[in-house]
Amino acid sequence: MTVYVAPVKDMMFVLEEVAGLDEVAALPGCEDVGADLVSAVLDEAGRLAEEVIAPLNKTSDQQGATFADHAVKTSPGFKDAYKQFAEGGWIGLTCDPEYGGQGLPYLLSIPVSEIWNSACTSFALCPMLTSGAIEAITHHASDELKAIYLPKMISGEWTGTMNLTEPNAGSDLAAVRTKAVPNGDHYLISGTKIFITYGEHDYTDNIIHLVLARLPDAPPGVKGISLFVVPKFLVNADGSLGARNDAKCVSIEHKMGIHGSPTAVMAFGEGAGAVGYLVGEANRGLEYMFTMMNHARLAVGLEGVGIAERSYQQALGYATERIQGRVVGREGALPIAYHPDVRRMLMSMRSQTEAMRALSLVAAAAMDKAERCADAEERKRQQARIDLLIPVVKAWCTEQANEIAYTGVQVHGGMGFIEETGAAQHQRDARITTIYEGTTGIQANDLMGRKVARDGGEAAFALIAEMGQTVAAAQADAALKTLGDTLAEAVGHLKEATAWIVANYGSNTPAALMGANHYLKLMGTVAGGWVLVRSALAAQTKLAAGQGDAGFYKQKIATTGFYADQVLPLTASLLTILRRGESSLKAADAALG
Amino acid sequence: MTVYVAPVKDMMFVLEEVAGLDEVAALPGCEDVGADLVSAVLDEAGRLAEEVIAPLNKTSDQQGATFADHAVKTSPGFKDAYKQFAEGGWIGLTCDPEYGGQGLPYLLSIPVSEIWNSACTSFALCPMLTSGAIEAITHHASDELKAIYLPKMISGEWTGTMNLTEPNAGSDLAAVRTKAVPNGDHYLISGTKIFITYGEHDYTDNIIHLVLARLPDAPPGVKGISLFVVPKFLVNADGSLGARNDAKCVSIEHKMGIHGSPTAVMAFGEGAGAVGYLVGEANRGLEYMFTMMNHARLAVGLEGVGIAERSYQQALGYATERIQGRVVGREGALPIAYHPDVRRMLMSMRSQTEAMRALSLVAAAAMDKAERCADAEERKRQQARIDLLIPVVKAWCTEQANEIAYTGVQVHGGMGFIEETGAAQHQRDARITTIYEGTTGIQANDLMGRKVARDGGEAAFALIAEMGQTVAAAQADAALKTLGDTLAEAVGHLKEATAWIVANYGSNTPAALMGANHYLKLMGTVAGGWVLVRSALAAQTKLAAGQGDAGFYKQKIATTGFYADQVLPLTASLLTILRRGESSLKAADAALG
Repeated sequence: MTVYVAPVKDMMFVLEEVAGLDEVAALPGCEDVGADLVSAVLDEAGRLAEEVIAPLNKTSDQQGATFADHAVKTSPGFKDAYKQFAEGGWIGLTCDPEYGGQGLPYLLSIPVSEIWNSACTSFALCPMLTSGAIEAITHHASDELKAIYLPKMISGEWTGTMNLTEPNAGSDLAAVRTKAVPNGDHYLISGTKIFITYGEHDYTDNIIHLVLARLPDAPPGVKGISLFVVPKFLVNADGSLGARNDAKCVSIEHKMGIHGSPTAVMAFGEGAGAVGYLVGEANRGLEYMFTMMNHARLAVGLEGVGIAERSYQQALGYATERIQGRVVGREGALPIAYHPDVRRMLMSMRSQTEAMRALSLVAAAAMDKAERCADAEERKRQQARIDLLIPVVKAWCTEQANEIAYTGVQVHGGMGFIEETGAAQHQRDARITTIYEGTTGIQANDLMGRKVARDGGEAAFALIAEMGQTVAAAQADAALKTLGDTLAEAVGHLKEATAWIVANYGSNTPAALMGANHYLKLMGTVAGGWVLVRSALAAQTKLAAGQGDAGFYKQKIATTGFYADQVLPLTASLLTILRRGESSLKAADAALG
Repeated sequence: MTVYVAPVKDMMFVLEEVAGLDEVAALPGCEDVGADLVSAVLDEAGRLAEEVIAPLNKTSDQQGATFADHAVKTSPGFKDAYKQFAEGGWIGLTCDPEYGGQGLPYLLSIPVSEIWNSACTSFALCPMLTSGAIEAITHHASDELKAIYLPKMISGEWTGTMNLTEPNAGSDLAAVRTKAVPNGDHYLISGTKIFITYGEHDYTDNIIHLVLARLPDAPPGVKGISLFVVPKFLVNADGSLGARNDAKCVSIEHKMGIHGSPTAVMAFGEGAGAVGYLVGEANRGLEYMFTMMNHARLAVGLEGVGIAERSYQQALGYATERIQGRVVGREGALPIAYHPDVRRMLMSMRSQTEAMRALSLVAAAAMDKAERCADAEERKRQQARIDLLIPVVKAWCTEQANEIAYTGVQVHGGMGFIEETGAAQHQRDARITTIYEGTTGIQANDLMGRKVARDGGEAAFALIAEMGQTVAAAQADAALKTLGDTLAEAVGHLKEATAWIVANYGSNTPAALMGANHYLKLMGTVAGGWVLVRSALAAQTKLAAGQGDAGFYKQKIATTGFYADQVLPLTASLLTILRRGESSLKAADAALG
């Protein structure tokens, strides 16, 4: 039984027609990234995902990671799958070729990430965290540390973790208390870290922990946090493994979902102190984390896209097989997919998932351009775009994924509540995605405060102006005129909302922030519509030219139409609510005290 | 540690000032139901819930019901708690006094139900299903069956179950295949039933199953289904227990939530056939089920209200203790409840929960009046009101409960995803409520088709006219004018939507049904606003008169204001989407085939 089919066709369409694969292929270092290569890579990832990883998803939920004696046993099949994954070179896709990576652009790695997350989010988390650790070392560590750690992490021989959170330092890393005391050529680290994804496992001989800690003389708050490499086993000069470091997993969490991903409580320095090596300069740890934040948040957004796609595929499969009740206006015994309300649920899942995918790919292209464009002005412009889009991709895609997975359960009726069906797992797995790497509230505050109010709306209005071009193009095409009109209205609401923020954020920030979540949803909804209408325009052009798969293009236009009818109209209400921030805050203060 | 406090104060306020406790107390048979009695009963229920039942909720999730050898062992503490519950006379609250019930109105039993569901939904399900079985026997069985079964079910000595669903007969009971063959004074039942709540347990010596089955000569479809009483143990003439009947639990389900409630697969007649007794007349089983449907659906709506309240209390508790980050516009280390976005989440949970509670109590009063009013015309009018409100209370309250419990997890951040915290349990427990007793889609179709289109909108417009009176009253009060204006707009949208349905349902039913879910949400949102504004009007009157707890009244007005700002504006978008049913359906057909 096929449990998942990678949506390579939709990905290739979006990459080529919406996200600008050709533009990215024209960037320095991306010369080989043509459609043929990308398509071959996606096919290969799809094969590994479909045949090896996706079948492990349910097992990993039912037989999650287990803990005993400081050791974690991963879910059945995970270790073998990881070996194949590492051997396939998937970890180093975007990494520095000097250390064994392939130096490919995000526009290629992001759809691949979606595939891993659809196949099994619990499994995908280990390479995702390793990538984060690789990135931290690549950008900020000494050549010596790089030479010791990067090749084996990029090859997958060792994995990496990110140790930020402590019991009293969650969203607020200023409160980090873990200590680092200088001791010759290294530091001795002591403290407790929680929520450490794959902090311990049985995949590999070594695990490389990246740890935030404070030096004895560090200033208080965020400016006194440094970043350290703390390997599970020390590494000898010849690269062989040495002594066991004083860094131990003391328990793993019992979670609502992603049971296959061990979430460790890590104790550093319970004995003599854990040997750690400073990354970059002292007291710049949080700054280094911030440089990686966009990638990490985009990656979590992709978890949302991946789970949404998997959930849709499962719901569609059930709804086209299950026969129940008579369908109004049709004869005979038909599957439930024909009931209007089930059709609505399926299309709401599908249209939003396609919008999320397209937006994540547009964001990936901007990220590539921001890093690789030859022109400094253009890099800056692209960086502003990606800074604006990241909280939206992170929070909107994950919030929608939760809604989509919820709807997936609903499509299954009573069977959706039974764990064996698998639909409920998607809802439980999705639940963490709106929380880690910055909650939706934090993304929303970031979007409204740092990304919109701070530059007086410049980056947002630039995006809105581009949306206007899409509106004009759709309105100019008779077949897409209605779509263009609907998008125009939604973009108008986004523009009004943005102007409202620019005008009001400074004078009453708490009142504005009452609407931060609504503004983020408004921007995500409109941006999703924008990339879908761009998809529809491209599909219409292909249809008019009689090129390619007419059925696919018609479906793309229809899916966009559904989104325009059923999702875009929300923007009117969101704008209204946003504007009522001041009285909402007063009401909240009066009711909550 | 107090894990739950019954919101008796809010309940009493709504009962007296909004739901019309005095009117219900004036109904025949309700003479004793004054505020003193009600308040004493709610206090007593609150005490049992807080001290005995609520502390079992987390245990029941972690150590749910278990199955072995056709027997079910319930969660630790459940059996003792059930004993206290039965001894307290809680099962027979609304039951016929002739058989040991207390004959009290729904307006008293419904807030009590909310309390049980907040305390522990898994626990509350057994008495809830028993009530359904009692009702079926009371209204439709012979005096002989009543005399044998009712007293012991009402006292709680025996429990009851409802056996409707089969693997291929879920929402569509026309497909029921279980057989009933005449055999002397009884029938022999054979077939498999699934999703049987408390189909087996260790509380009591006997379990009375109500089973839908077909006689050999029954017509096909819904008109050939009969209802039977099938006891686990046969009952001798002297009332003692006789032979074990051929009705067995063969397994229980592994579910996403409500782990404490055993969901049984029941095998009837695996041997010689299960002895069953016909309830009422042959082939009228589904009709009997329909007469009970309003009560059952209201009861599930109450599960939503109960879980929402519990989830809010837990989130508020966490948010007022957890300190993290600096709060914009305020000094010092403050708990997260002061962050604007957390405030928004808390108030959205609270305002919607209070709206749901008030609406469920208004529905309960209508149900009492529909059954007890002396005037036949008035009974008919109240029945139309309750028929209209039931799908809304059932589906809107449960959908909102899912959203509220989801938000409750979000307020907890990373801790919300850790099962020990307990927030995730509410989200998982709530998940079933939008599915059983008719999915949200089924409620929405029922509302649009049977309750609005069929009578040309008569019942809906009557409700809308009453809402108009509330609008006028609020607009006439300077302090509540803004509230009145906001409600006016929302009621206007409901009126337009209703007129649209009346005009369009007949000509293109499938297209109209694409918006059934949106219309239900629109009506729920507006009805919730309506009952809250009525609450605010009552609170304002009290304030003006200088009576009672001014703090409580001010909070009620503020909570209503928050709902008006943040929830009511959704109606504009919902109306727009509803009207796009035809093009949405075309898009869905084009995309899904």
